[in-house]
Amino acid sequence: MSIREDKPTADVPPSPGRRKFLNSAALAGLAGAGLSVGLSACKQEQAPATTAPAEAPKPAVAAAHGAMDPHRTPGQLDDYYGLWSGGHTGDVRVLGLPSGREIHRIPVFNPDPLVGWGITNESKKIMGTKADGSLQYTVADTHHVHASYKDGTYDGKYAWVNDKINGRMARIRLDTFECDKIVDIPNIQGFHGIFPDKRDPVDANINYTTRVFAGAEFSLPLPNDGTGMEDTAKYRSLFTCVDAEKMEVRWQVLIDGNCDLVATSYDGRLAATNQYNTEMGAKYEDMMSAEKDACLFFNVARIEAAVKAGKFKTYGDSKVPVVDGTREANKDPKTALTAYVPVPKNPHGVNASPDGKYFICAGKLSPTATVIDLAAVNGWFEGAVKDLKEAIVAEVELGLGPLHTAFDGRGNAYTTLFLDSQVVKWNVDAAIKFYKGDKNVKYVVDRIDVHYQPGHINASMSETKEADGKWLAVGCKFSKDRFLPVGPLHPENEQLIDISGEKMKLVAEHPVRPEPHDFIIFKRDKIKTRQVYDINEFPNAVKDIKESRIERKGNKVTVYLASFAPAYSMREFKVKKGDEVTIVLTNLDKVEDLTHGFAIPKYNINFIVNPQETKSVTFKADKPGVYWAYCTHFCHALHLEMRSRMIVEK
Amino acid sequence: MSIREDKPTADVPPSPGRRKFLNSAALAGLAGAGLSVGLSACKQEQAPATTAPAEAPKPAVAAAHGAMDPHRTPGQLDDYYGLWSGGHTGDVRVLGLPSGREIHRIPVFNPDPLVGWGITNESKKIMGTKADGSLQYTVADTHHVHASYKDGTYDGKYAWVNDKINGRMARIRLDTFECDKIVDIPNIQGFHGIFPDKRDPVDANINYTTRVFAGAEFSLPLPNDGTGMEDTAKYRSLFTCVDAEKMEVRWQVLIDGNCDLVATSYDGRLAATNQYNTEMGAKYEDMMSAEKDACLFFNVARIEAAVKAGKFKTYGDSKVPVVDGTREANKDPKTALTAYVPVPKNPHGVNASPDGKYFICAGKLSPTATVIDLAAVNGWFEGAVKDLKEAIVAEVELGLGPLHTAFDGRGNAYTTLFLDSQVVKWNVDAAIKFYKGDKNVKYVVDRIDVHYQPGHINASMSETKEADGKWLAVGCKFSKDRFLPVGPLHPENEQLIDISGEKMKLVAEHPVRPEPHDFIIFKRDKIKTRQVYDINEFPNAVKDIKESRIERKGNKVTVYLASFAPAYSMREFKVKKGDEVTIVLTNLDKVEDLTHGFAIPKYNINFIVNPQETKSVTFKADKPGVYWAYCTHFCHALHLEMRSRMIVEK
Repeated sequence: MSIREDKPTADVPPSPGRRKFLNSAALAGLAGAGLSVGLSACKQEQAPATTAPAEAPKPAVAAAHGAMDPHRTPGQLDDYYGLWSGGHTGDVRVLGLPSGREIHRIPVFNPDPLVGWGITNESKKIMGTKADGSLQYTVADTHHVHASYKDGTYDGKYAWVNDKINGRMARIRLDTFECDKIVDIPNIQGFHGIFPDKRDPVDANINYTTRVFAGAEFSLPLPNDGTGMEDTAKYRSLFTCVDAEKMEVRWQVLIDGNCDLVATSYDGRLAATNQYNTEMGAKYEDMMSAEKDACLFFNVARIEAAVKAGKFKTYGDSKVPVVDGTREANKDPKTALTAYVPVPKNPHGVNASPDGKYFICAGKLSPTATVIDLAAVNGWFEGAVKDLKEAIVAEVELGLGPLHTAFDGRGNAYTTLFLDSQVVKWNVDAAIKFYKGDKNVKYVVDRIDVHYQPGHINASMSETKEADGKWLAVGCKFSKDRFLPVGPLHPENEQLIDISGEKMKLVAEHPVRPEPHDFIIFKRDKIKTRQVYDINEFPNAVKDIKESRIERKGNKVTVYLASFAPAYSMREFKVKKGDEVTIVLTNLDKVEDLTHGFAIPKYNINFIVNPQETKSVTFKADKPGVYWAYCTHFCHALHLEMRSRMIVEK
Repeated sequence: MSIREDKPTADVPPSPGRRKFLNSAALAGLAGAGLSVGLSACKQEQAPATTAPAEAPKPAVAAAHGAMDPHRTPGQLDDYYGLWSGGHTGDVRVLGLPSGREIHRIPVFNPDPLVGWGITNESKKIMGTKADGSLQYTVADTHHVHASYKDGTYDGKYAWVNDKINGRMARIRLDTFECDKIVDIPNIQGFHGIFPDKRDPVDANINYTTRVFAGAEFSLPLPNDGTGMEDTAKYRSLFTCVDAEKMEVRWQVLIDGNCDLVATSYDGRLAATNQYNTEMGAKYEDMMSAEKDACLFFNVARIEAAVKAGKFKTYGDSKVPVVDGTREANKDPKTALTAYVPVPKNPHGVNASPDGKYFICAGKLSPTATVIDLAAVNGWFEGAVKDLKEAIVAEVELGLGPLHTAFDGRGNAYTTLFLDSQVVKWNVDAAIKFYKGDKNVKYVVDRIDVHYQPGHINASMSETKEADGKWLAVGCKFSKDRFLPVGPLHPENEQLIDISGEKMKLVAEHPVRPEPHDFIIFKRDKIKTRQVYDINEFPNAVKDIKESRIERKGNKVTVYLASFAPAYSMREFKVKKGDEVTIVLTNLDKVEDLTHGFAIPKYNINFIVNPQETKSVTFKADKPGVYWAYCTHFCHALHLEMRSRMIVEK
């Protein structure tokens, strides 16, 4: 058994183990399989790296060298909110930035015993249940979280997040930071990319989010009912549009290839997904056999007109209209619903530049980024541009394993290099000039080592027209030796970089539970929260202690309780063995932050009620005896004494 | 609906809202009930407060004034581990200190969809299942986490944590930071305090932890089978001893009153619990009607002799021997198993001083701390001390709502004042002198405001003979306005104080998901982790890709799979609708930190395998069709392409 050696406390140089790790881990299997998949070194080095060369790198500690200070003194608030997806913890996390402190976790797809998410009747209704009342699913894999827009920037109303495992989309209210709706997307598996639109493609008055797009990765027999399973070349994937307000699926598009990420244009006309596996392979070797995949664009207005005109199919039990967006069916630009812009194979990530002009696809297996001119894509749909390849205004080398791109609002892009474990800062206009032929242009502005294997990246307000170029966060998939060892499962490493100047400066790193994928960072003034509920919003609220009561109908018993520190309104209540008991609990305390809990031993019940909130639980009283329900959420000097005695009579 | 006003970014003075909050929230209900429960102001102010008076307090920002720097530069490791209980999230969290960064969360009593805790067969066996194979419980409430000892300090082997809701105790291995055993404690509800012993009471060679003690809060009819429910005065509570290695219950003691916290002596002879509700009341007014409760001591050697001699009962289905530790049955010191040392009513917290001499009970409803001389308690059991009151060597006023106490190894104690929202530093020897009559002695050394309503407190190595007096962490139950608003549910606030000097200095605050209760802080060199598993420890391991196979016995199918980035060893596998499928997955990657995940859409399956680890899941293949199992844990440039196709034939 390997025992990890203790390490000195002083600054630990991240190498040479760092480069060794790249070889042994990130490339493991690839090399083993004898594959060369475009992983040749970057041929054109545009600018010297900011860190020392690989042989003797030094830690990129910048905090002391004029960088902005990420730390907060006690009582000092953060300047930005961060919304971080939780990956296979199934939640969304709220960070304060630049401190990196986690100020909230929002249970979404998975149960949360603290809040009572998946335990209370109200949350089970949102999450979805089987016929027997138990939860439909208790696992999920959230990847991408994006927020609603108005006038090209965040309006602080909603955020959406996907569940890749079970193909669901959830909405989070940004006034209470709670999930309020979850929708199942039919006909798909591996729902990955998600992005809200920024305005309506037709109605100029709708300059805010009304649709959320979803890209499915895995292609399937359609319908997936146990037939047509053998011929994988006939499997297909779908791109989906969900109504942002109603949270219902509006339409789907049948496509070739597997969707990865999603981006939307500032004019509302285009949505796109970068694609891999346009080969329609079932094994990874096949999925990367072709030299080109695509960035697939959707003409939203045309798709909706086609649906309106009844030009759609449905699959299986689903009633969702599905239009045909395959390559074969969309050859004529004048009627095409989709446009497949060729990009180097297996790209990973598509991001909209804050000036509204470009989508940028990162190469992953190609060391390049591809800059796509949206005006040219619209021009192709309009017949003004002949060849979709004309939309490609740059395809430049950045380094090994480019994955995702963020922006500073000053014309620069920041792309993660997974295999190089770097972030590269590059100028988009310069890259376009270079690609046009001016080989003297230096488009790479700066490089910085990160630790290690970065995936998603985002900058403050980067996904809006208000990109402010202050802070860059980098989600590093491996932390290796950057934190105290905690056994085989490592935290991941969210690193924070000051991008306010010419050079990037690494200022802090924060361990996180695996595994955040995507995240957004927005100014605190975008958010207006409700810190105390309105008791009138809950139809079953117990608005006064005097309303506490027990109602019985046959063997169905409802116990109406209220909490008011340090007591529940009934110190005891009696039910009979075999009863179906519903407990309705209103927290009558009005003071902000004065939350109460309610747990019943042996009955698997625990939830909280925030000030002026009402929740309910239902269970069968199947065990006779005394059960002390108690407050689990420290509330008062007499918190320990805050109990109610459930007496279950034989 | 109340909309929270935005706050300026600059340092926010925590008052006058701070004091107002104390009145309106912490005392809510108490005042309303017209009760005066010993909450009179502290009569003797021993030293001036370090902060300004209540009328115009200033923030206690100290980081810039010569305090130790809690921040880490990128790559710089922390000096200490912190083990934090998670409260009703049911987990244990691992922090790095002084940075306060969460480096791990250990799933314990509740399912964790990231790890697959509660999903894999291996974890379900530890957690406990019902007859139908589903989990016995999915909620829990962890309060106190304490670690194993050798020679009076931590040996880095185990930690234990309680579940208050369902009366369970869990063990965590500190080499892998994983839960490996959970034991149900019979005959109890509301298991609250927990503490391992520090050496054997009889065998001097056993100078390490072999027992873990558990105090139950709620008293019950015994057995709790639906009989004897009316006469609450006859309800009783139990104190429990668990075998540290076997994780089986060794014995229980029937007692008067409700157990709160637990402490153990360095000589191994004594365990104790501070008690409230020696009145045996069922409502909080009754629970605090008497002027005195007790710190209840257990003579471990005598209890074990009594068990050996067969002087015990059992209750209901439980076979655990229960000895009689009630006051009535233990009047003769020479034979007594227990000793009830009187302390002011409803104390909260009992802590062992690192010099081995004292247990300190904090008053909660009394503004005092009581210092109990362990030599005198042992003396009472031996007949050398007549009256247990002689064991009380100090009972001094500290402030309003004293709850818990930590130590610096230099003779000073640090006690949280819940109602005053302060930490008070006081000298134990000075307090003893003052109590003896020397009223000129100033035992209060310093006070500092914290934010807000502090509960547990602990200092680096404070619970060992190696208390080093560097850092003090304070678990504040309310954070109110200290972090960006995130809706009605607030984070709690773990504040960090530099105690290396005479004056305490508040240097950082960290928001945490509710709600950590207790925690311990220990030097990093106490821990030697295993960062990669030994494949040979898993009897069902698939040790080579060639061992991948499908075995069928009737409708029971076992799929033996291996992962090796970026692929699973079988790209597809077929089962039939109705099969009971078990998937065994070994991660053959050996590189530290190279974890893979395994999720199956619509089948509610997700778990991870760390390097060289094997896990299994079992489910019914009840839906025909194609299901793409995929890797959920970013592992490789071709991570997205890492899949296996489960084909469920009709």
